[in-house]
Amino acid sequence: MPDIRVHLGLKFQIPMKKFLLLMLMFPLLSTAQTDHESTFRKIYDSALTQSKCYAWLDDLSNKIGARLSGSENAEKAVLYTKTQMEQSGCFDKVWLQEVMVPKWVRGEKETAFIRDGKKKTAVPICALGSSVATPKVGLEAEVVEVHSIAELETLGTQRLKGKIVFFNRPMDPKHVDTFTSYGGCVDQRGKGAREAAKFGAVGVIVRSMTLRLDDYPHAGNMGYGDLPRDQYIPAAAISTNGAELLSKTLKANPKLRFFFKQSCETFPDVLSYNVIGEITGSTHPQNIMVVGGHLDSWDIGDGSHDDGAGVVQSMEVAHIFKNIGYQPQNTLRVVLFMNEENGGRGGDQYQAEAARKKEHHIFALESDCGGFSPRGFTFDGSAAQLEWAKQTQSLFEPYLVHVFKKGYAGVDIAPLKSPNLLKAGFRPDTQRYFDHHHAATDTFAAVNKRELELGAATMAALVYLVDQQGQ
Amino acid sequence: MPDIRVHLGLKFQIPMKKFLLLMLMFPLLSTAQTDHESTFRKIYDSALTQSKCYAWLDDLSNKIGARLSGSENAEKAVLYTKTQMEQSGCFDKVWLQEVMVPKWVRGEKETAFIRDGKKKTAVPICALGSSVATPKVGLEAEVVEVHSIAELETLGTQRLKGKIVFFNRPMDPKHVDTFTSYGGCVDQRGKGAREAAKFGAVGVIVRSMTLRLDDYPHAGNMGYGDLPRDQYIPAAAISTNGAELLSKTLKANPKLRFFFKQSCETFPDVLSYNVIGEITGSTHPQNIMVVGGHLDSWDIGDGSHDDGAGVVQSMEVAHIFKNIGYQPQNTLRVVLFMNEENGGRGGDQYQAEAARKKEHHIFALESDCGGFSPRGFTFDGSAAQLEWAKQTQSLFEPYLVHVFKKGYAGVDIAPLKSPNLLKAGFRPDTQRYFDHHHAATDTFAAVNKRELELGAATMAALVYLVDQQGQ
Repeated sequence: MPDIRVHLGLKFQIPMKKFLLLMLMFPLLSTAQTDHESTFRKIYDSALTQSKCYAWLDDLSNKIGARLSGSENAEKAVLYTKTQMEQSGCFDKVWLQEVMVPKWVRGEKETAFIRDGKKKTAVPICALGSSVATPKVGLEAEVVEVHSIAELETLGTQRLKGKIVFFNRPMDPKHVDTFTSYGGCVDQRGKGAREAAKFGAVGVIVRSMTLRLDDYPHAGNMGYGDLPRDQYIPAAAISTNGAELLSKTLKANPKLRFFFKQSCETFPDVLSYNVIGEITGSTHPQNIMVVGGHLDSWDIGDGSHDDGAGVVQSMEVAHIFKNIGYQPQNTLRVVLFMNEENGGRGGDQYQAEAARKKEHHIFALESDCGGFSPRGFTFDGSAAQLEWAKQTQSLFEPYLVHVFKKGYAGVDIAPLKSPNLLKAGFRPDTQRYFDHHHAATDTFAAVNKRELELGAATMAALVYLVDQQGQ
Repeated sequence: MPDIRVHLGLKFQIPMKKFLLLMLMFPLLSTAQTDHESTFRKIYDSALTQSKCYAWLDDLSNKIGARLSGSENAEKAVLYTKTQMEQSGCFDKVWLQEVMVPKWVRGEKETAFIRDGKKKTAVPICALGSSVATPKVGLEAEVVEVHSIAELETLGTQRLKGKIVFFNRPMDPKHVDTFTSYGGCVDQRGKGAREAAKFGAVGVIVRSMTLRLDDYPHAGNMGYGDLPRDQYIPAAAISTNGAELLSKTLKANPKLRFFFKQSCETFPDVLSYNVIGEITGSTHPQNIMVVGGHLDSWDIGDGSHDDGAGVVQSMEVAHIFKNIGYQPQNTLRVVLFMNEENGGRGGDQYQAEAARKKEHHIFALESDCGGFSPRGFTFDGSAAQLEWAKQTQSLFEPYLVHVFKKGYAGVDIAPLKSPNLLKAGFRPDTQRYFDHHHAATDTFAAVNKRELELGAATMAALVYLVDQQGQ
């Protein structure tokens, strides 16, 4: 390597650059940069040596398990987390906030097969959330494979009437952030059925939203939009291996038939709860900071990553503060939202109550991307707030947290409104998330204790900085 | 949040900072920054959509399995990788480099128990690499627990003679980089036995080097140094749960006895090989760049992370270059080293041959920290080289690779010497590494395909930059 430093006169430039970086750091330095560094160290040490989050997650995943809105397990999770928050001694106040939630029930295990002439090959499927059932005897029809909703228009009623539409556009592996790949596909799951129904399709099968090739169907919500009730058609996810097989078999035999049977059902809404714990701010109690995840999960797997992790990490933020003796100046609320998966009612309800009480929220942080190694945050706020957030990065550097950028913060805090409110989404490493998301593979064993703890510490550190600098 | 940007006059400062950053980036810009960006994109796309590394690892782990130096499996791995490299069409030349390696064999599965009065409790152990066997009937003695080698001196022969020394200092969970925690403990494994033997101890049991509490003993090498052969004492690793139990039981009954039996044996050195594939440089064939991992593994688990991952990632670097049509200007060698785990003979041999042939190495990159999400590199080189390396970071930013710092590069390339040689160690996320390291849990299922591929791409991207900028 040539000595590029000398070539460019860097011996002169580096001190100048450092000088400007120091200037940029000024707000942190002026409020005792070393104090922040020291508090960060305490926060991470607490998380890595005395956290409760992993044990909480063990209970939530292994003693309770899957907890779809409106289910008995969801209510157990409400009671469990309320009790744990009360017993933790971390909060001044713990309460339940009533929220009416949808109650969709999967019913019997689904069955499906490809009928290729005389050959029947079973494939793993699961009904999509909010879908209607097939007829009791199941549904069998020819299949039309498509790769986008736009393609339906091209094919038209003539090709689609009476058929099962098979949405098979895979997640694009080229995106480093797998959520981008997910975002590029999930319209097939969300509105594939309603759009296909408009052309007379009788059912839809959607390739699972995962980058792996495996045998697990991945659940997730769908909706019928404004479609008249009598035009609802059943929708199911098929495992990626199943999708590959179906696609390949279709190429050889376009007349093959697909059979599936599901008995899922939507019942009237039921009463459930957001679980809220509050530490009243010592100096600015009227200013509220929220940190949260969602208590509900899909009904397969045990919801450890989605979003048991976010729940226990949010609780851990309060535990870390207690453990290191940090009293927030602003009010801190840990909010465990109900019904993120199939309605978002918890987030709506929290905002409705906040508006009714004229509460002033200065900050909201959501963890709903799994319990993986922390990489950073996305921020939804003003340019000045984003600039402030980026300046905090140097404090996170020793903990290998690097990403501080503009972006969506999360479903549950999306409805929240307050003047000058900064929202943040916790962003862990995304490579493994969709191996587990909404599937039977979302289990406690797939969560690493240290990754979970480091996430909690990273969240606590940001909440601490907001509390120190905010308003 | 207040508008800190206005407060600090950042509107003025940011453009200046950007200007200086642009200046710092000059060497990359001057050699077509956009070309680099475009090649990076091709490299990552190739890895994420057309790589062979995961399939190679599947073979290495599941068709061959554990491959300790001198074992039949190690030879199978040599042949397999040589054949794959030849058949890949990525190389101008593939050859085997002879190297004599130690042959240590574990023998029968070890047994161990705590004898607490009349109660016998079995605990999981495994012999440490290079250890001698116990007597055939096993070894039983009272136990002295220590937390450091220094403590042996304090206790002295009076307390230690005839005893089993139990090294129980755990890895410190507070380090974010788990290799730092490992480095703070591994002296107990490496030289605990030789030091304890000096005080008349009859055996040593070492707490496994992992941050988890589980039932897996973790192997690893030890050595007797200058100790006379007749003073060698057997050494074994105990699972962390076993260590916790032993420690707790000892507190209640300091007179308890520990039994263990192992039949491991060291045979005369045997002939083995480094596997080397070379792409001859188009412009500077005399300048050699090495990228490598080690072919051997411990004999439990299947060595997927340690270091199957590094092997297949190194091979993938050449495959990516072929796939995107990149012809290196300098010679690129993929070197699969033999015997990293219990001797480092492959690295020594490679350097010896290079010296004999007066080869000129400009760069060496080692991947031996597992197949996890890439975080960056450590560099061992001059200040100017380090500065150059840091400047490359902005190109890696879109791929979430942030760590470019001074540090140790790796065991196998440590012996390599050349004027102005830059060495680099690939650094993936470290949180899960010691859950698997040298244990039965180091299996193919623990490797995520995308994490492995992103690591290979990150390595290829750095090799590409060195090739473009080097010498």
